[in-house]
Amino acid sequence: MRALISVSDKTGIVEFARDLVELGFEVISTGGTYKLLKEEGISALEISEVTKFPEMFDGRVKTLNPMIHGGILHRRDLPLHVKTAQEHGILGIDVVCVNLYPFKETIAKTDDFDEIIENIDIGGPAMVRSAAKNFSDVLIVTDVLDYDGVIDVLKSGSNTLEFRRSLMIKAFEHTAAYDSMIANYMNQRFNGGFGEKQFIVGTKAFDTRYGENPHQKGALYEFDYFFTNNFKTLKGEASFNNMTDINGAVKIAASFGGAPAVCIIKHANPCGFAIGENLLDSYVKALKCDPVSAYGGVVAINGTLDKALAEKINEIFVEVIIAANVDEEALAVFESKKRIKIFTQESKYLVLSEDAYDFKHVDGGFVFQQSDVVQDEEVTQAKCLTTRQASKQEMSDLEIAYKVASLTKSNCVVYVKDSAMVAIGMGMTSRVDAAKAALRKAEDMGIDVSGAALASEAFFPFRDSIDAAAVAGVKAIIEPGGSIRDDEVIAAANEHGMALYFTGVRHFLH
Amino acid sequence: MRALISVSDKTGIVEFARDLVELGFEVISTGGTYKLLKEEGISALEISEVTKFPEMFDGRVKTLNPMIHGGILHRRDLPLHVKTAQEHGILGIDVVCVNLYPFKETIAKTDDFDEIIENIDIGGPAMVRSAAKNFSDVLIVTDVLDYDGVIDVLKSGSNTLEFRRSLMIKAFEHTAAYDSMIANYMNQRFNGGFGEKQFIVGTKAFDTRYGENPHQKGALYEFDYFFTNNFKTLKGEASFNNMTDINGAVKIAASFGGAPAVCIIKHANPCGFAIGENLLDSYVKALKCDPVSAYGGVVAINGTLDKALAEKINEIFVEVIIAANVDEEALAVFESKKRIKIFTQESKYLVLSEDAYDFKHVDGGFVFQQSDVVQDEEVTQAKCLTTRQASKQEMSDLEIAYKVASLTKSNCVVYVKDSAMVAIGMGMTSRVDAAKAALRKAEDMGIDVSGAALASEAFFPFRDSIDAAAVAGVKAIIEPGGSIRDDEVIAAANEHGMALYFTGVRHFLH
Repeated sequence: MRALISVSDKTGIVEFARDLVELGFEVISTGGTYKLLKEEGISALEISEVTKFPEMFDGRVKTLNPMIHGGILHRRDLPLHVKTAQEHGILGIDVVCVNLYPFKETIAKTDDFDEIIENIDIGGPAMVRSAAKNFSDVLIVTDVLDYDGVIDVLKSGSNTLEFRRSLMIKAFEHTAAYDSMIANYMNQRFNGGFGEKQFIVGTKAFDTRYGENPHQKGALYEFDYFFTNNFKTLKGEASFNNMTDINGAVKIAASFGGAPAVCIIKHANPCGFAIGENLLDSYVKALKCDPVSAYGGVVAINGTLDKALAEKINEIFVEVIIAANVDEEALAVFESKKRIKIFTQESKYLVLSEDAYDFKHVDGGFVFQQSDVVQDEEVTQAKCLTTRQASKQEMSDLEIAYKVASLTKSNCVVYVKDSAMVAIGMGMTSRVDAAKAALRKAEDMGIDVSGAALASEAFFPFRDSIDAAAVAGVKAIIEPGGSIRDDEVIAAANEHGMALYFTGVRHFLH
Repeated sequence: MRALISVSDKTGIVEFARDLVELGFEVISTGGTYKLLKEEGISALEISEVTKFPEMFDGRVKTLNPMIHGGILHRRDLPLHVKTAQEHGILGIDVVCVNLYPFKETIAKTDDFDEIIENIDIGGPAMVRSAAKNFSDVLIVTDVLDYDGVIDVLKSGSNTLEFRRSLMIKAFEHTAAYDSMIANYMNQRFNGGFGEKQFIVGTKAFDTRYGENPHQKGALYEFDYFFTNNFKTLKGEASFNNMTDINGAVKIAASFGGAPAVCIIKHANPCGFAIGENLLDSYVKALKCDPVSAYGGVVAINGTLDKALAEKINEIFVEVIIAANVDEEALAVFESKKRIKIFTQESKYLVLSEDAYDFKHVDGGFVFQQSDVVQDEEVTQAKCLTTRQASKQEMSDLEIAYKVASLTKSNCVVYVKDSAMVAIGMGMTSRVDAAKAALRKAEDMGIDVSGAALASEAFFPFRDSIDAAAVAGVKAIIEPGGSIRDDEVIAAANEHGMALYFTGVRHFLH
């Protein structure tokens, strides 16, 4: 039995090789791996002893040799293959343990293109793919975390086809992810991120119980271990829809730096948001906006969930809490509640991955775009179009309303008063419908909107929404501007004694 | 100068090889390609003459040889590399033309796993990747469509680094897509489509002018050339948001077989839908639901856009028409209109790709799920919970309302009367808000909802929406059922003399 070991990441490799030798394997190895094994007193053959050919071109050609690939690829169940191998002195290789040159680490640390090109592994993927193709006869090991399992299987004699097949799948995932990363990198470097092909590659974080609905299977896939590193389950099990709602809630609650922001989401849209004196105060104010919708909602907390806040939240049924951090006492508050789910990022404030790109499935493909980010300057440097200017508090409310609006489904309007959302209309096909629905709802709920700041994520096409806002007592408005009827909108704002600001940047979200 | 040619798809290869020979290249070739070139009278070396090693293991090992990979990979700018190559009789290979075993075609035609495994190319990707890595010295040609361009460049002496780099990027896209396809196939076959890694790979159909907003770059990527084959621009340029709206509009309009269905979408949600006597009648009825929102909307037409329909649509401003087919006369109607965009699928009825999987970006990764499909039986075999049963027309209206609701953003309610949508509430955080907003809007617009059928994509949690519907004169309701207060909902329906049906299947869409 022979094992070929050629790894860039040498974690655990000495123990693995030693175990293989103990199991009676002859180990074949390359350059750095060979040197390490030798230092550790593990007997191994250098690759050139097998290939009868020297390593050349600074290591560019080592293993691309029929003595290696023939040893991996020939089918042991076909007598002709076995005979041919014997005739050419090709010895079977039964375990291939390979991981690849660190392309990812290289592009993270340098822009030097020669160095980057040199870190594209050629021989490694070829061996991985050969061994995967011939998984009937060969164990292909590409993951450090599989070393123990492979040794166990070999020791216990349970080296089944099914086990080898699972390693084969992993091997093709490994080479596919490697080349996807190379292609994406090249397209980002030379084609502005929009090359001929786009590779969206995720690693499963966890299966969800089902998808958006119970008859659909679903799972969460992550980039760069974002959820593995920043999402810990304290209670319950996150569903598919929870994850999309959490996405919306965290994005909004994390939009104001270290402010004690609380956001409540239902069906991917905010139904409560506030920045209060502290997180408890913020939650109380956020809940006021729409306690009916908040029922069964997702609450994002930009800080630590403590006992007092937990007791307050526990007064109604919320389905999900996602908090930067959670006290043990707070967790204990929910001990007897079966339905609530609690997740934490174990951080001081909520963190985002801030992916550079965004994408959406459409039947037959997907649309792909740079991510939308609201810049602080859009608000701080917004242009005032009216005689009246916003007060300091109004300006702060405008900023909150504007950022929340940019993260709410279009068409939307957001009304904020004293740093708390007091009304919201969203996801509607007409802007004035959204504006009116928000105000009607506030009225139904006895919420006084007078003195509120209003934001729209896209321009108001007519003055009707402005007039409706004026009746409700709104005093300051922020929107991108750009309608052919901006003049009418500005005139309406002046008539009503409002402050109106244009940012010049639209933030549609669908 | 030497060119290595080893192709599975032999389209255009004879001409390409002949051109290379005329340019003074010595051609090296493998098995089937070699045979073809010889038959066509093109002089070529067989690969084994270069490797001094026979092809073996039924072709599993041919090119995995240092004479080949050394010839590709050694750097011509490094004297030591050149010297080493000379010492070992390794001759430089300057053009590598390779395409891969037809894995995709194989899995499309067979489930035989041995045949599938045999169609995983090992030597091909290794050569492609070697040549791509050394693009400084080597032209890597993986696309039949590049043959002419490569010959032009060689003839004109404009073989620049930039040109070779673009081929290199294409080469890594090629191998990345190939292994992604293999990994996805294996995960579909053995892991139900939800393996450890998920590869979403698209080919650019076109760049959009910008993304969801003007400050974002965007593009449409397609699977299996769906848009290339089923989306033709007759007028204007499709934007990013157009493509997502078209997606929604076509899905709804294509949900009723060959029925003359027309759907109007604004901001990804329907604001008009009808199935009339003919497409013109359908459009007129669809528009009535919400002509305000329809302004600037997307109209999907499940059939041929003719002159009469075009003239009717031309009375207001719609931004986009997507029709299964478009008459020349109809197109002429819009000749002087600059802003309208017209697209066709050049088919009898609207067609869908019907992707098996759906996905959504969340910050740090994506959620992935089986696609949601409404089965006809959900409606035809829905359970009647009330004394009163739906009439035939009501049943038909319930089906329309239910299917439209399943393709509208949650929470939503859809009211349909005489095969036309008369009111809709969508994208709201509370279901009763959606129900009420829809009815208020219908009232504002003077639309009589009495006698309509009502659908909800998820259960009504309380009787409030039923009571509101009764006041408006709704006579039949369909919903999944499943609320802990279903009894109250059923009682309400009976009190109001309504027919109430449960389907048992939820269709959230966010």
